Amino acid sequence: MKIKSELLNIETETGIQIYNLTPKVQDWIERVGLQNGQITLFSRHTTTALAINEYEERLLVDIKAYLNKLAPENDRYLHNDLHLRVVPPDEPMNAHSHLMAMTLSTSEVIPVMDSKLALGTWQSLLFFELDGPRQRTVLVQALGEFE
Amino acid sequence: MKIKSELLNIETETGIQIYNLTPKVQDWIERVGLQNGQITLFSRHTTTALAINEYEERLLVDIKAYLNKLAPENDRYLHNDLHLRVVPPDEPMNAHSHLMAMTLSTSEVIPVMDSKLALGTWQSLLFFELDGPRQRTVLVQALGEFE
Amino acid sequence: MKIKSELLNIETETGIQIYNLTPKVQDWIERVGLQNGQITLFSRHTTTALAINEYEERLLVDIKAYLNKLAPENDRYLHNDLHLRVVPPDEPMNAHSHLMAMTLSTSEVIPVMDSKLALGTWQSLLFFELDGPRQRTVLVQALGEFE
Repeated sequence: MKIKSELLNIETETGIQIYNLTPKVQDWIERVGLQNGQITLFSRHTTTALAINEYEERLLVDIKAYLNKLAPENDRYLHNDLHLRVVPPDEPMNAHSHLMAMTLSTSEVIPVMDSKLALGTWQSLLFFELDGPRQRTVLVQALGEFE
Repeated sequence: MKIKSELLNIETETGIQIYNLTPKVQDWIERVGLQNGQITLFSRHTTTALAINEYEERLLVDIKAYLNKLAPENDRYLHNDLHLRVVPPDEPMNAHSHLMAMTLSTSEVIPVMDSKLALGTWQSLLFFELDGPRQRTVLVQALGEFE
Repeated sequence: MKIKSELLNIETETGIQIYNLTPKVQDWIERVGLQNGQITLFSRHTTTALAINEYEERLLVDIKAYLNKLAPENDRYLHNDLHLRVVPPDEPMNAHSHLMAMTLSTSEVIPVMDSKLALGTWQSLLFFELDGPRQRTVLVQALGEFE
């Protein structure tokens, strides 16, 4: 049993965007030679998140509408009173992005069998930008038996 | 340290149902001989989910009402425009089930000490069917020191 | 590769409170000598939870308001009909706390590199008391290569 780690870089677009990380992660599993074990995905920002679900174009629109309904951008949030906090000059008003991130996930663990992510038919590894555009990173760890 | 995996099969009933996986998982820990380490539970569908909470009959009703309030089945969802997607003839209108699944969890990691799930007094491993009835699978991995 | 576990004790204050576990967990990593691997955090109660986000005073108020909006304490819940359940005399009416816990997380896995939690700049390990005051425990596991 061994453990290997890598940072994936993701350059995101404006606002809320959903990215499918499955091909990148599957490629990396093959590159490092993990045969049986598990992958840990870790979102390294307070306004990004992870989920495992279907990457279907129309569902992605529904997901964004759902997140906007739960945590509307224009509600009143104390975190958005930038004049009452010590912040850099380019600090965004993004309390809603933090709340969306906490409703989704920061870490996910996915079993790997015979060098393949053991996902169900419709499952994809989804990365959520909730306050883009930005340069983002996701940490991937492979744990188990390697070639 | 070793890792062992198994697929649990679950035949679910109609609509939204909550199942207590704790006895099945505890049995499996004893069968494979995990002494100290951890269990990873992985829900392998986009309309099922996991959570760890109390399996109390009246709370289960509250949980279903809560999920229905957050993501009502009859809201307008683009994913439910089946005529605009390439889908099999028995494709269900289940956008709400996807949103509920993303609000709950896909993966959970539970410590195991002295061959027992290290759960708190009222905690159970809950599996959520969000669009039943179906044949479902949950992947269980045991990681750590075995007998 | 080895695995080590410890229970952290947390004495919480009344109602909903958010605690930053990062310093305690980072100290423990150094004490047990984990160099590369991962930490699993596990919340051992049905009315506590975990999340990984920013520990900023004004955001904490927004998070509490958000949880109260999703699952208001005074909504009608079947779990709160204490006279219809077999319960101890001090059983609280806390259905909302269970629902909040399920919206957040019970388990989180955080990569560790060079003996440091590999968190992003603004990320902290947050523990949520959702029905305090109580004596609570969080289980921490270190998995990987030790000094």
